Amino acid sequence: MFNKITIIGCGLIGSSLLRAIDKKKLSKEVSIYDKSKEASIFIKNNFSAKVFNDISESVKESDLVIISSPLSSYKEILLSIKSNLKKDVILTDTGSAKKEINKIISNLNLENVHWISSHPIAGTEFSGPESGFSELFENRWCILSTENQNNTKEINKLKSFWETIGSKVKLMTFEDHDHVLSITSHLPHAVAYSIVRTVINDDDKFKNEIIQYSASGLRDFTRIAASDPIMWRDIFIDNSENILKVLNSFSENLEEIKKAIQSKSGEKLNNIFSSTRKLRKEIIKAGQETDKPNFGRK
Amino acid sequence: MFNKITIIGCGLIGSSLLRAIDKKKLSKEVSIYDKSKEASIFIKNNFSAKVFNDISESVKESDLVIISSPLSSYKEILLSIKSNLKKDVILTDTGSAKKEINKIISNLNLENVHWISSHPIAGTEFSGPESGFSELFENRWCILSTENQNNTKEINKLKSFWETIGSKVKLMTFEDHDHVLSITSHLPHAVAYSIVRTVINDDDKFKNEIIQYSASGLRDFTRIAASDPIMWRDIFIDNSENILKVLNSFSENLEEIKKAIQSKSGEKLNNIFSSTRKLRKEIIKAGQETDKPNFGRK
Repeated sequence: MFNKITIIGCGLIGSSLLRAIDKKKLSKEVSIYDKSKEASIFIKNNFSAKVFNDISESVKESDLVIISSPLSSYKEILLSIKSNLKKDVILTDTGSAKKEINKIISNLNLENVHWISSHPIAGTEFSGPESGFSELFENRWCILSTENQNNTKEINKLKSFWETIGSKVKLMTFEDHDHVLSITSHLPHAVAYSIVRTVINDDDKFKNEIIQYSASGLRDFTRIAASDPIMWRDIFIDNSENILKVLNSFSENLEEIKKAIQSKSGEKLNNIFSSTRKLRKEIIKAGQETDKPNFGRK
Repeated sequence: MFNKITIIGCGLIGSSLLRAIDKKKLSKEVSIYDKSKEASIFIKNNFSAKVFNDISESVKESDLVIISSPLSSYKEILLSIKSNLKKDVILTDTGSAKKEINKIISNLNLENVHWISSHPIAGTEFSGPESGFSELFENRWCILSTENQNNTKEINKLKSFWETIGSKVKLMTFEDHDHVLSITSHLPHAVAYSIVRTVINDDDKFKNEIIQYSASGLRDFTRIAASDPIMWRDIFIDNSENILKVLNSFSENLEEIKKAIQSKSGEKLNNIFSSTRKLRKEIIKAGQETDKPNFGRK
């Protein structure tokens, strides 16, 4: 499909892409740059991809360059690679917030570069290249965004790339992407972090009990709150406007529950708690979740 | 182990107890009362237990009476059964909040009744007798509470009962129980309900997208927010004091995150997001969770 693909940043997502590209034989050559020495050594030891110490060298002659590093690193990366990008290269990424990075890239006025962002809705609570696996993108959505709708050929090529590694692809504007993800992903993360912080701040006397009885709800939230801190720091800064809006709406809903508790209004609580069951059924129906009780945990 | 056990309320928990009692042959006889006709018919059709229409009849000659119905139903149940309880019966329950129901039971001044509450930390997002299974309690904690420490024989008997069906048992005061569970269980539920409400209140235009991309975090919360509304209404009313306290502490933590986002303070966000990873490791170490990425979901 490609002669050469470069992956910049080879953590959970980047290394899973590398594995999937190898498995599906999607490129004659793959070159890797990761600023971490440990990650670079891990890739060298486990894969046939060429690992570069010089980021600007890594992108030469590549038909597809994938940035898969924290959002805050994009600007420096782009400044380092822009003069070595091949004519008509497809430039993409795997970041979880889009509007701000699109601004950065637009301001660089890159010529003969087809910038089409990707967001694979896939991941786990683990990070680093040793956590990756080739099936990570199977049956998951990948959202593509671009301002230049004339890139039809390149959009289709990138779409095929994601589809070949198992994803379902959807096109969305940068703005809609950031709104939808602020609800489906950024809100749950902010809340999970706040829950775990609340637990940590509780009386140490109960710490063992809280850990022991975490199966009553808490443990599910700790999964999300164990995600990569740098990645999440950058998402919260880049998508701050949407996230603050949705967090305020969340706080209002929580205040409603608090008031119902305070007034011991069974009717209000019942209405609130009854209204939320339907959404899960719709998510299961949409194939985004199974209906196994407890996630199938024993 | 027992000559006769009565289970009052035969939903997810009650019917799982029935299945476990049958499987482990823990009682010569089991009698069931459930106010729902559908539940009663389901039990009659699928189990050898005797199903009663008259609750006061169901407890006669029982050595162990287990109330496994919503907290708000306890008072009426106890008033209906108290004159028919066998001398030296063990009276227990499976409720998720304890202090208020203990007050109710203490005020009834039941004579020759050994009231020892149970809280099996087990359950799924499904309800009703058809959702139960005999392994539900395996390797899960069950918290016993009683004010009368002289019940040594009965405490040990109830402990053995839970251990035989696979649980690990711990004794705790009613007060400590309600504090710990307000953090591990009631807080996550209140928050999950608020998240799902926030989603429901969002612009309908994005509804399909939100469902499609729920794998980015949201779907985990919908599991908890799909739990039984009546059960949760009663828990929030009975444990209101602890829950309000912990929700206020949660709101403070959320405000801290909001402020860090507002000021785009990468350092503060990084500190917050780094502080939360450890708790999951401790929960996994304590055997309350596996370390499979994504709960082992594919």
